[in-house]
Amino acid sequence: MDLLTDIINVKTEGNTDILNITPEIEKVFAKANITEGIMHLFVIGSTAGLTTIEYEPGLVEDLRNYFKRTAPEDIDYKHHERWHDNNGHSHIRATIVKQSFSLPIFNKKIILGTWQQVILVDFDTRPRSREIVVQIFGKTA
Amino acid sequence: MDLLTDIINVKTEGNTDILNITPEIEKVFAKANITEGIMHLFVIGSTAGLTTIEYEPGLVEDLRNYFKRTAPEDIDYKHHERWHDNNGHSHIRATIVKQSFSLPIFNKKIILGTWQQVILVDFDTRPRSREIVVQIFGKTA
Amino acid sequence: MDLLTDIINVKTEGNTDILNITPEIEKVFAKANITEGIMHLFVIGSTAGLTTIEYEPGLVEDLRNYFKRTAPEDIDYKHHERWHDNNGHSHIRATIVKQSFSLPIFNKKIILGTWQQVILVDFDTRPRSREIVVQIFGKTA
Repeated sequence: MDLLTDIINVKTEGNTDILNITPEIEKVFAKANITEGIMHLFVIGSTAGLTTIEYEPGLVEDLRNYFKRTAPEDIDYKHHERWHDNNGHSHIRATIVKQSFSLPIFNKKIILGTWQQVILVDFDTRPRSREIVVQIFGKTA
Repeated sequence: MDLLTDIINVKTEGNTDILNITPEIEKVFAKANITEGIMHLFVIGSTAGLTTIEYEPGLVEDLRNYFKRTAPEDIDYKHHERWHDNNGHSHIRATIVKQSFSLPIFNKKIILGTWQQVILVDFDTRPRSREIVVQIFGKTA
Repeated sequence: MDLLTDIINVKTEGNTDILNITPEIEKVFAKANITEGIMHLFVIGSTAGLTTIEYEPGLVEDLRNYFKRTAPEDIDYKHHERWHDNNGHSHIRATIVKQSFSLPIFNKKIILGTWQQVILVDFDTRPRSREIVVQIFGKTA
């Protein structure tokens, strides 16, 4: 059993920017010698989250619309009274999506559906540089 | 420390079908020789998710109603323009619930509350055959 | 590679009580000899959940308001017909937030953002005593 930790750096536009990070994850995985195990992903910060989607422009827009409906920008947030910023909705959306996600590794492959990609969603209200911690552990070849 | 990977196959009705998969998980666990560790579960695909609930018919209906309120079927989804199908709501619901879930193992038991079961929620609009990857790792007896 | 399992006991007020459990998690971590690895957290039960937030009173209230909007207390829940209690909304909220959360460990530190704390959210309608299973595994010093 071995364990590897790496960091992916991703530049985002913020404002519920939804990025397919599967290629970056695959690159980290290619450097590991793990044939069977688990990949744990974690985006650092309280205004971003990780999940999966079929990454195509229509669904990306549909997902943004989901967040606009359930945690709109233009309602009252008490958070704004503290910092006089305007990203209360960013925090709430990120708290619901959460920052951690795990994927199985088997036969020296990351297991995902054919139409399934791992996405970083950056809910903050400005462009950000994000760090995603990638941890791979399991059996070696 | 050891690691075991297995697959559970589950047939669903789709349309936010909510299935208690705890018995199937327990069967996989019974084959493992892990006394203390973590079980990682992952359902393959972008229109299903994993979480827990007190599995009783009332709550199952309440959970379906939650999804109808927050990601209704009958609103506009841009995803439908791409594929001319009608499962935009299925994708959005699954992206929120997410496909990965982990459980502790201690004293050679899976830790869950007395009134808590692991559920597969299949949001797709048709019956599906789902694969859930079960991974158990930790200390052996 | 080593693995440690511990339990944190937390008393809550219920009613979507939102508690910062980061100090308790740090205490457990300080007892472990893990320099690089993963911390898995799991709150036992079907009416509580784990996630992260910038823990300040404004956002805590904003998060409560999110749940009031998306899974209100005062709508019809079929769950109430079964047990004649009134915590249908508690279950639904917990099923969405989920009970499991993982954090990276690197350089003998738990990785979290500067303004990011791990929270226990207790959705039940009464004070509860909660058990959070903390599991730390990875490379030892």
